[in-house]
Amino acid sequence: MQSNRLEDVYISPSTLPWVPFSDGIRFRLLRVSPETGTWTVLFHCMPGSAFASHQHLGAGEYLMLKGKMEVRGGREAGGVTAFAGDYGYEPSGVVHEQTHFPEETEFYFTNFGPVAFLDDEGNTTSVLDWQVLASLAKG
Amino acid sequence: MQSNRLEDVYISPSTLPWVPFSDGIRFRLLRVSPETGTWTVLFHCMPGSAFASHQHLGAGEYLMLKGKMEVRGGREAGGVTAFAGDYGYEPSGVVHEQTHFPEETEFYFTNFGPVAFLDDEGNTTSVLDWQVLASLAKG
Amino acid sequence: MQSNRLEDVYISPSTLPWVPFSDGIRFRLLRVSPETGTWTVLFHCMPGSAFASHQHLGAGEYLMLKGKMEVRGGREAGGVTAFAGDYGYEPSGVVHEQTHFPEETEFYFTNFGPVAFLDDEGNTTSVLDWQVLASLAKG
Amino acid sequence: MQSNRLEDVYISPSTLPWVPFSDGIRFRLLRVSPETGTWTVLFHCMPGSAFASHQHLGAGEYLMLKGKMEVRGGREAGGVTAFAGDYGYEPSGVVHEQTHFPEETEFYFTNFGPVAFLDDEGNTTSVLDWQVLASLAKG
Repeated sequence: MQSNRLEDVYISPSTLPWVPFSDGIRFRLLRVSPETGTWTVLFHCMPGSAFASHQHLGAGEYLMLKGKMEVRGGREAGGVTAFAGDYGYEPSGVVHEQTHFPEETEFYFTNFGPVAFLDDEGNTTSVLDWQVLASLAKG
Repeated sequence: MQSNRLEDVYISPSTLPWVPFSDGIRFRLLRVSPETGTWTVLFHCMPGSAFASHQHLGAGEYLMLKGKMEVRGGREAGGVTAFAGDYGYEPSGVVHEQTHFPEETEFYFTNFGPVAFLDDEGNTTSVLDWQVLASLAKG
Repeated sequence: MQSNRLEDVYISPSTLPWVPFSDGIRFRLLRVSPETGTWTVLFHCMPGSAFASHQHLGAGEYLMLKGKMEVRGGREAGGVTAFAGDYGYEPSGVVHEQTHFPEETEFYFTNFGPVAFLDDEGNTTSVLDWQVLASLAKG
Repeated sequence: MQSNRLEDVYISPSTLPWVPFSDGIRFRLLRVSPETGTWTVLFHCMPGSAFASHQHLGAGEYLMLKGKMEVRGGREAGGVTAFAGDYGYEPSGVVHEQTHFPEETEFYFTNFGPVAFLDDEGNTTSVLDWQVLASLAKG
């Protein structure tokens, strides 16, 4: 039975590489939990970049550090537009068809589980989990 | 901010319907957590039934109540063969290509997140999460 | 960064010792999670035994295997009386002043965090967490 | 059975009051989870302030936004000294006898469970959980 306390972690993120995620989007991987599937990253998004349509199979929690993020189409479409300093929580199960970054944006993000990317009919095309992120970060 | 304590739950499972899951396998849904994606069920499996190939996107924890379960091909193939009274924990990320029930089997199961069903090449064909289970149980 | 998948666990509980917990109550420790603080046990309770007054600092989930458990005073006091086969979930934050076992009882129990034992004024006298349980089980 | 998706949360923290926590330390409460006991806050610490001796009964994860935090006595005592931009994770079970803020400091903090405050002999004097924080923030 594993019964040792986990090690503490301390990172100056500026010492970590930016890892390519998708077109115009990079991340620094701060932590993955092989046990719970939780992962914590810094995302850096170029102006005009966007996340492809996805479903959160675990809740996501964020703190905006810089720029502007339009979730679920942004405020004008009934979603959220988040600015530097803002906090948000998106629950497990929610589908994000459109998450746009009109400006250079950076945010701290913890996701409590995997993300499923979806095609136009809402079918899962791939699953992003802690194993995929750890593997991308190892290069 | 949601800040009320959750309600307690008390169920006599024999009052719940058995819900069809897959060929020869049924479940009674005891709880889903919309927040964490955790779900707790009783599975009932007919002799000769099996789970299709899947990946755990959250850990699974079980207590065998009756019968026999062969996980990862069973003991002879290097996996686990579990009998009534046995306990097991399968970690997040593990792929189960073969889980067989040679006898009528019942077990209590908690999964801490979703399950991805896989085709022969290991691609995700569908994702089973708390929303799917709650929807199946509502009928 | 820890990024290896956890090991699977498989236990025949009858091979484990019963560890003394409190007067008339013993447990078999199936798993502790040093990361989440979750612990899974089998509790065995002698007729007339009871848990001292406590507060759940994490939710508890149980499946009754044998006997009878009176939670929050039992059904007659507005609480729950659980019998073999029954399932329950007690949320984080709840205080249990009286949990009695009028018969020899065994149940499977997962607690998602620590338990605080309380004196008559509701002050914490001690905290039971995964570290205490792992230490008790090591003997 | 509760089976509705949780609401999303979006907060501009500058609209929230600073709630007194302890001498020289205030917080803005961003979220509590009644289910998991997780709480997310912004802490603001005056120069010279410190947290009293405590044990984490759930892991803590932080992002430094401003200033300087000395954990476990700081770097010179074998602990950690964290600066603006730094990330850390302190595991469940760890005891923090000394956490000092030599400068005005602000950090984003998520704790996955309660915190037990300790006297000089290491006995629990009080427990801080999501219920206490929600109650403090309601005023």
